[in-house]
Amino acid sequence: MVSSVVVVAGIGNGSGTGGAVARLFAKEGYNVALVSRGSESLNALAQAIKVSGGNAESFPVTTYGPDELTAAFAAIHARYPTPEYAITAAIFNAGQSVWKPFLDVTPEDIRESNKVNIEGSFAFARAAILAFQKNAPSPATGAKGTLVFTGATASLRGNVITSVFASGKFALRALSQSLAKEFGKQDIHVSHAIIDGGIATGNTRGDRNTEPSGPVENPTPALKLSPEAIAASYLYLVNQDRSAWTWELDLRPAHEKW
Amino acid sequence: MVSSVVVVAGIGNGSGTGGAVARLFAKEGYNVALVSRGSESLNALAQAIKVSGGNAESFPVTTYGPDELTAAFAAIHARYPTPEYAITAAIFNAGQSVWKPFLDVTPEDIRESNKVNIEGSFAFARAAILAFQKNAPSPATGAKGTLVFTGATASLRGNVITSVFASGKFALRALSQSLAKEFGKQDIHVSHAIIDGGIATGNTRGDRNTEPSGPVENPTPALKLSPEAIAASYLYLVNQDRSAWTWELDLRPAHEKW
Amino acid sequence: MVSSVVVVAGIGNGSGTGGAVARLFAKEGYNVALVSRGSESLNALAQAIKVSGGNAESFPVTTYGPDELTAAFAAIHARYPTPEYAITAAIFNAGQSVWKPFLDVTPEDIRESNKVNIEGSFAFARAAILAFQKNAPSPATGAKGTLVFTGATASLRGNVITSVFASGKFALRALSQSLAKEFGKQDIHVSHAIIDGGIATGNTRGDRNTEPSGPVENPTPALKLSPEAIAASYLYLVNQDRSAWTWELDLRPAHEKW
Amino acid sequence: MVSSVVVVAGIGNGSGTGGAVARLFAKEGYNVALVSRGSESLNALAQAIKVSGGNAESFPVTTYGPDELTAAFAAIHARYPTPEYAITAAIFNAGQSVWKPFLDVTPEDIRESNKVNIEGSFAFARAAILAFQKNAPSPATGAKGTLVFTGATASLRGNVITSVFASGKFALRALSQSLAKEFGKQDIHVSHAIIDGGIATGNTRGDRNTEPSGPVENPTPALKLSPEAIAASYLYLVNQDRSAWTWELDLRPAHEKW
Repeated sequence: MVSSVVVVAGIGNGSGTGGAVARLFAKEGYNVALVSRGSESLNALAQAIKVSGGNAESFPVTTYGPDELTAAFAAIHARYPTPEYAITAAIFNAGQSVWKPFLDVTPEDIRESNKVNIEGSFAFARAAILAFQKNAPSPATGAKGTLVFTGATASLRGNVITSVFASGKFALRALSQSLAKEFGKQDIHVSHAIIDGGIATGNTRGDRNTEPSGPVENPTPALKLSPEAIAASYLYLVNQDRSAWTWELDLRPAHEKW
Repeated sequence: MVSSVVVVAGIGNGSGTGGAVARLFAKEGYNVALVSRGSESLNALAQAIKVSGGNAESFPVTTYGPDELTAAFAAIHARYPTPEYAITAAIFNAGQSVWKPFLDVTPEDIRESNKVNIEGSFAFARAAILAFQKNAPSPATGAKGTLVFTGATASLRGNVITSVFASGKFALRALSQSLAKEFGKQDIHVSHAIIDGGIATGNTRGDRNTEPSGPVENPTPALKLSPEAIAASYLYLVNQDRSAWTWELDLRPAHEKW
Repeated sequence: MVSSVVVVAGIGNGSGTGGAVARLFAKEGYNVALVSRGSESLNALAQAIKVSGGNAESFPVTTYGPDELTAAFAAIHARYPTPEYAITAAIFNAGQSVWKPFLDVTPEDIRESNKVNIEGSFAFARAAILAFQKNAPSPATGAKGTLVFTGATASLRGNVITSVFASGKFALRALSQSLAKEFGKQDIHVSHAIIDGGIATGNTRGDRNTEPSGPVENPTPALKLSPEAIAASYLYLVNQDRSAWTWELDLRPAHEKW
Repeated sequence: MVSSVVVVAGIGNGSGTGGAVARLFAKEGYNVALVSRGSESLNALAQAIKVSGGNAESFPVTTYGPDELTAAFAAIHARYPTPEYAITAAIFNAGQSVWKPFLDVTPEDIRESNKVNIEGSFAFARAAILAFQKNAPSPATGAKGTLVFTGATASLRGNVITSVFASGKFALRALSQSLAKEFGKQDIHVSHAIIDGGIATGNTRGDRNTEPSGPVENPTPALKLSPEAIAASYLYLVNQDRSAWTWELDLRPAHEKW
């Protein structure tokens, strides 16, 4: 029996979307290949998943540039060889965020954003799609693989200090739509999630308790997105039947003003 | 223990989206209140759900106009009184579809479209929201209730023979977005699904087999949307955690050209 | 030589968009057919245009519903018969604005909105297109006629108190896009202007002077849209060469926050 | 009296949008600074404008990358020094178009696209805005300057062979929207034109005659965009009153299927 692998790029300190996706997919039985900067928090996350009974391996990079992402995929293939394993899901959660008044933007800001958000996402997508093309369609869903990109409010709207960030996120959205149209016919599912609000990560997790009536440990915060809830939506996308695939869905907290 | 009720408006002959939603929610334990024209197919669907061990009741209307929808909700409240029951989900799947060259459109076409798509949807939404406001938040999701509207390709684009249809669907989208913004703060979730392709209904279900390599009974058709897959996405929306709600998601078959 | 007629529906008190369009087109040599409620301000505007050396006639209605608009067009045809005259431009600036929390919306609010914004706009468009179809293409632009619809911020976004208003404006946008696609091939130009800000009308014209550095009579207000500037954009749309037609353009003051 | 300068980047062989913009603005009295690759066609265009009685100078580059564009603006400032001259309009018409199936895209394709479409447009915008900030507002329009970006169908939709092209065009659109919001308050106007169809350039100008009824020299082609008509729309944007500025307008031929 083939064992499924999910590649998750962009983990940060492990308390946000990438970490939650990794934990949830591990719980669902996936072998989780973690690609991220900062091998320390990467290893800590892999270790925590193993302690919980899951499978996870670290594939650290120093940037999310195309060369390193391509190399990371090669290492993942080596670790999880066919036909025992199949990469069936890939989550691109990496990103380079710069918020600055336009005249403060430096050429380096732009180049670094392009490297991660565009060169990096193209390289990640290429590796994921080449992997998916080798797979048999899932008997359950008809998909050979699912690629999910993490977008943001800035995927839909440029704003006063987001010229760089929005350019990168718009480009990512264009890529995801092009891929969805080109590879749907090959039973490869490409999705784009628009995270339209603040995420309750390690640093801001306390905000989960800012609701007047909220319990100390509020599992359903209404002012911030719970990383676990985002992860649940990514799992849903991966499990969609190929007869009704979603390209784009927005996600925001119930009490968000939008 | 409170028993959940879902109201589903727009069933047609029972082989499309409305019927699939009713069957799926019944299987999940909901009491299903069916609102539709054609009491015969309505009763047949209710009967089929009961035979499968579910709960369903028919609330027939002669049109999806506001008076009849309001009356149907009153009858549903009478049949499923508080505090034993709580209406926690409502699906507006009704619609009036007219595709005509613009100069062939009659004043009656427009009025009938407005009656169902706008007056009807407003009345249905009002009744659903008033019902939801009485509920306690779900311990699992934080929601007091979820309202899902069925949209179409014509929700996003007017086209040469869709002046009437697109006007109604654009209006429905506007309503759903306004409601999502106004009632999110009250823990009421409003969603809009864009069905961007043909649906494999009773009449066209044979199309599920048009795939060269498809089995006779293809559970995951790639050229048409399976009603069951649409229903699964509606159930997903209803079960979303309030920290990451989706307003709008598109759904289309894997092999759709778009 | 054929004399051009523009039909302008929706004049209000004459100090806003409709009035400015009428004055500008009169100055450009059009015969202006004014369709609006309130025959007093309608006649005052017609009189003012005549005093300035232009041609304008009033065609009062009591509502912008379909029957009255159709009748108004018939009267316009009688007053400006072919082949001496040709209706070459039509501006639909009428609208019914209701801003209310959703639960305060009455069935009458919805019906009245639908009557003006949808039934009315369809009737106006039908009459305009039937008139345009009789015209020869303009030697200058290649167009047989131009139909411009006035949209608003609510054409693109539903908001907390705009369920009714946005439904009507979304529907109008759908209509305008359907028509643009269907009748472009017949050299009939259909446009949709999104007025994304407050307009400096009679009541608020004083706001033109709220700019700290603004003169008493500020011809280029930066916080509100000048009706004359909107009118200039409508004239531009009418004069576009058929090789590069605009369906939709947004208009907002320079200092608008958006 | 201050003499106005327009900077036009992206001229190609001079028969398309850039060339038409240059000729039209020269006719309107602007000093035209031409920035483009291929000094031969650049000089030919400058020469042709001069012969017609206009003012134009060439500022050739070898690529539209940021360094060369920044250097070109420096040379333009040197040639047209303040206070005799003021750069009041800047048109970014450069672009790098790659249409390829995704798996044929090379890292070099992506980097070259990013360099022109993103690094180049950011550099061009920076230089233009810094120039505009030195200007007094135009007494006629209230604007200190206008920056127009040329977009395409791919600015709004990714498609099967447009992953690279659409990424660049989406990014450009994000940039233009961010700038419009940030610098509108400073009376600097930023616009984005969506060219939604084929352009009748030198190579395809014969297509202007494909209309069955079209004359040999058809000034208003209905199947392709005339560069002169696009140029007229850019001039219109530059002349808009600051009380009603357009950020985005689409342009397409009357008979386009869309």
